[in-house]
Amino acid sequence: MFIRNTWYVAGFEHEFDEPFISRRILDVPLVLYRTSQGVYSAMDDCCPHRLLPLSKGKRVGDDMQCGYHGMCFSADGACTSVPGQTNIPAAARVATYPVQARHGFVWIWMGDAGLADPGLIPDVHWHNSPGWASSQGYHRIEAHYTLLNDNLLDLSHETYVHSRTIGNDEEETIAAYTAKVTVEQDSLVRAHREMPNIEAPPFFALVIGHPCRINRWQSAIHLVPSINLTVVGVHPVEEDRTEARIGHVLHLLTPESPGSTHYFWAFVRNYRLDDAELTEGIRKASSATFDEDKEVLEIQQQQMVRMNTSVPNVAIKLDEAPVRARRLLEQRLKHEAEDSRYVVAPPPLVPEHSFAVLEEV
Amino acid sequence: MFIRNTWYVAGFEHEFDEPFISRRILDVPLVLYRTSQGVYSAMDDCCPHRLLPLSKGKRVGDDMQCGYHGMCFSADGACTSVPGQTNIPAAARVATYPVQARHGFVWIWMGDAGLADPGLIPDVHWHNSPGWASSQGYHRIEAHYTLLNDNLLDLSHETYVHSRTIGNDEEETIAAYTAKVTVEQDSLVRAHREMPNIEAPPFFALVIGHPCRINRWQSAIHLVPSINLTVVGVHPVEEDRTEARIGHVLHLLTPESPGSTHYFWAFVRNYRLDDAELTEGIRKASSATFDEDKEVLEIQQQQMVRMNTSVPNVAIKLDEAPVRARRLLEQRLKHEAEDSRYVVAPPPLVPEHSFAVLEEV
Amino acid sequence: MFIRNTWYVAGFEHEFDEPFISRRILDVPLVLYRTSQGVYSAMDDCCPHRLLPLSKGKRVGDDMQCGYHGMCFSADGACTSVPGQTNIPAAARVATYPVQARHGFVWIWMGDAGLADPGLIPDVHWHNSPGWASSQGYHRIEAHYTLLNDNLLDLSHETYVHSRTIGNDEEETIAAYTAKVTVEQDSLVRAHREMPNIEAPPFFALVIGHPCRINRWQSAIHLVPSINLTVVGVHPVEEDRTEARIGHVLHLLTPESPGSTHYFWAFVRNYRLDDAELTEGIRKASSATFDEDKEVLEIQQQQMVRMNTSVPNVAIKLDEAPVRARRLLEQRLKHEAEDSRYVVAPPPLVPEHSFAVLEEV
Ligand code: FES
Ligand code: FES
Ligand code: FES
Repeated sequence: MFIRNTWYVAGFEHEFDEPFISRRILDVPLVLYRTSQGVYSAMDDCCPHRLLPLSKGKRVGDDMQCGYHGMCFSADGACTSVPGQTNIPAAARVATYPVQARHGFVWIWMGDAGLADPGLIPDVHWHNSPGWASSQGYHRIEAHYTLLNDNLLDLSHETYVHSRTIGNDEEETIAAYTAKVTVEQDSLVRAHREMPNIEAPPFFALVIGHPCRINRWQSAIHLVPSINLTVVGVHPVEEDRTEARIGHVLHLLTPESPGSTHYFWAFVRNYRLDDAELTEGIRKASSATFDEDKEVLEIQQQQMVRMNTSVPNVAIKLDEAPVRARRLLEQRLKHEAEDSRYVVAPPPLVPEHSFAVLEEV
Repeated sequence: MFIRNTWYVAGFEHEFDEPFISRRILDVPLVLYRTSQGVYSAMDDCCPHRLLPLSKGKRVGDDMQCGYHGMCFSADGACTSVPGQTNIPAAARVATYPVQARHGFVWIWMGDAGLADPGLIPDVHWHNSPGWASSQGYHRIEAHYTLLNDNLLDLSHETYVHSRTIGNDEEETIAAYTAKVTVEQDSLVRAHREMPNIEAPPFFALVIGHPCRINRWQSAIHLVPSINLTVVGVHPVEEDRTEARIGHVLHLLTPESPGSTHYFWAFVRNYRLDDAELTEGIRKASSATFDEDKEVLEIQQQQMVRMNTSVPNVAIKLDEAPVRARRLLEQRLKHEAEDSRYVVAPPPLVPEHSFAVLEEV
Repeated sequence: MFIRNTWYVAGFEHEFDEPFISRRILDVPLVLYRTSQGVYSAMDDCCPHRLLPLSKGKRVGDDMQCGYHGMCFSADGACTSVPGQTNIPAAARVATYPVQARHGFVWIWMGDAGLADPGLIPDVHWHNSPGWASSQGYHRIEAHYTLLNDNLLDLSHETYVHSRTIGNDEEETIAAYTAKVTVEQDSLVRAHREMPNIEAPPFFALVIGHPCRINRWQSAIHLVPSINLTVVGVHPVEEDRTEARIGHVLHLLTPESPGSTHYFWAFVRNYRLDDAELTEGIRKASSATFDEDKEVLEIQQQQMVRMNTSVPNVAIKLDEAPVRARRLLEQRLKHEAEDSRYVVAPPPLVPEHSFAVLEEV
């Protein structure tokens, strides 16, 4: 059900300024921290003595100390002390998982540790690169991660789910503009849609600074199993496309459990980089938008559980990109089930400068 | 477990002034509404595309529009539009159920739609007839509907459950007056009890206007599977029976799920018809009374679940009417299981004027 | 899973000043009361008619009256009246269990009633004896009772769980002092530990009246299946051991269900007997200490349920006493499973005067 041989986001890098964090990933409770030497560590959040979560204890130097009888474990999972005795029992250790910091995120590999090549981390460099400003946040969604993939690959839902934010209640629906869907290297799906000469919805009026008519386009890009990027471009109709305001919205999904997903997101833009008020305005607007998705997704999950079924039921044209992504995922799950050492190198989400996406059109 | 070929109350007629209501009936989640043409509609509350409840969307004209990707469905369950395409997939429709308004209630037929004869709707015309005034309300009870039938067919519980309202803590228990139990046409049970010359309990003192000694009688009438009527008569001992204050308490039960019941009730009376204060006083008193029943019934349900058993355990004389009703229900369930087209025409709950019940005695 | 042929504490004697109490013991819901004749009674909290808990009804004289249809039951479980009839159905009775008051507690025997010899009640006379003052309380712990036994037999956890109360964060851990573990008569485990010349932790500074260095010792005493006594002795290093402040902490555990435990506790002391402020101070400090245990134990229980396992996993030296107690319990459970009349006479927890414990050392 989960792809294991892949890098998932375990958290934002700045979260590791805390002594430790506890988080369930792929249904495994973990305690994660950064040592004083800058080494990142993720280990089972469970003392091998009497099962108490290590996160209920405390950080002592670069070790985690259990809060019940005081056994200590270092960043590599080894037991370093047992109160009341000098020898360390062989069984006294906890499992650890490869962890790497990159692009402002900390990534974790829950599969075969021998395959955890940092070169396989998806390139989402815009998140902390010069030339881009980032508004970021986190939502915990009580839904299977594939429902979020579906949602992010069919942006026509904006008309109905986000009518008060990024959708536009007054003109054509987004579905009226056909999306061109392409698949690359058995692991990437793109759905690109052009929306010329439309009334700017509230979110984009904020971006531009005033109500106006705009040319808008959007690409929904999905990397199996759960990395998503929305490229959003707009410019007033009277301006040139090269002047477009481009936003890259990263939606980095990490399965928490079969019924819940960590949703780390960042809206990065190439304009008004130093406008802190805009950064905060985009953060708030994005957060409100994802609140709306959260509501729909969690209801959908409850319906699936209640009816003991999986979606979809009736196929419509808008499902093309989500359906292709689901097929790639099934294929990948099958490969990994057959070969626990199966690994895929992720293709780039977009060429270096996302304008290239436009040129493809 | 549920009789399907019968009319259940889906709601009060006035509830349909809202754009739509959502309600689970016989464990089926439904969305219900009245079109601008006055047609009543009930359909599965589940979009066939990706399972979102239609009630999470909105009413658009006489259609329900799904709140995720905007598919629309008309009152007959047909899909009328799919964003992004012009053809309508054949599978895109939702199941509907026959619905009829009558006597101030909206009735639904969850069984074989071909058998949904409006002539089979139980006659509860007092609810909105001249000569009767109504105080009404709704309780959601987390208990199997047969526990409510039991409760309503053995009114001796008033002494213990309703000592502060309609019971009477100070004199003989209601159980001291033997109930005469009769069965009609394999689908109706009556339990009639006379209580001459008793102290008026608080509820009846309110009805009469002052404390006094009264002659009181009560008939508990049950129509399989879940229509109940309590006929309550009182008059001060010094007055004549033909001057009696008669109340008809309708208890119209609709199974929500195996563990919960919609309880639509109305107390209708033949006296002081224009006394709005009395109407409201009776509503409040009835509601408080049913709160007391709710508490007992929900505890009883929890006990049944916990002990994985069904009642009764020890049979006592007071169980006669409830036991007879349960036997009729089992018979009817058996018939319907053997023949999915089995239907029973309901006999009248009481002759036109309920005083006739008294004349039987 | 539960030893049945043994006396468990059903409650403090003073709780029976109430008309009745309801409490689940060994997963059986009970209603308990003391009659006007001073007879103690425990019966199934379930009316044999329609399952309503008798505790939802009321005490009428020395009977419990059901709150639904009014059947009454006397302290021996016999039905004494059925409204609406004069004869009593043979099936109308509820099961009862032997109950005895002793040492300020009320004890219950959930096994073979013929074996319920009051002589088998464990001797915890300090709880209400001259020469001892008691501070007492109750915690409901959502954990299996054996997790509490483990906790009480390895007091080294004080260093980590109770660092703010009875533990001592600044000097040696308690685990640094080896406990001497002994077993008696296949049903009693003792773990004794001496801690000479240590800084008084806050709790003992309160006992002595000022910060100072102390000699401290502690015995954890466990009687299968769930009676625990902690003997705690301290005196300032410059005083003689015969002047020691001795506290006996009774931890009387009664399984509520497989996942929860009634924890009746009392801290009894042999000093400053009339100091009501100290009595209250000890009560508060003990209660706060057990709050800390409660937190750890409930997390441990949740982990066991989540991982579908039982503890321990890795054995360490500190587990010696808990492991011995678990083995005695398994043995006893096996004996009772093979012979439902298997009974063990409990040896005394400590010789008459607990100082004798010290002389053993
Ligand atoms: S549970 Fe962690 S040291 Fe005992
Ligand atoms: S879920 Fe209803 S239109 Fe997609
Ligand atoms: S349920 Fe107790 S008397 Fe009926």
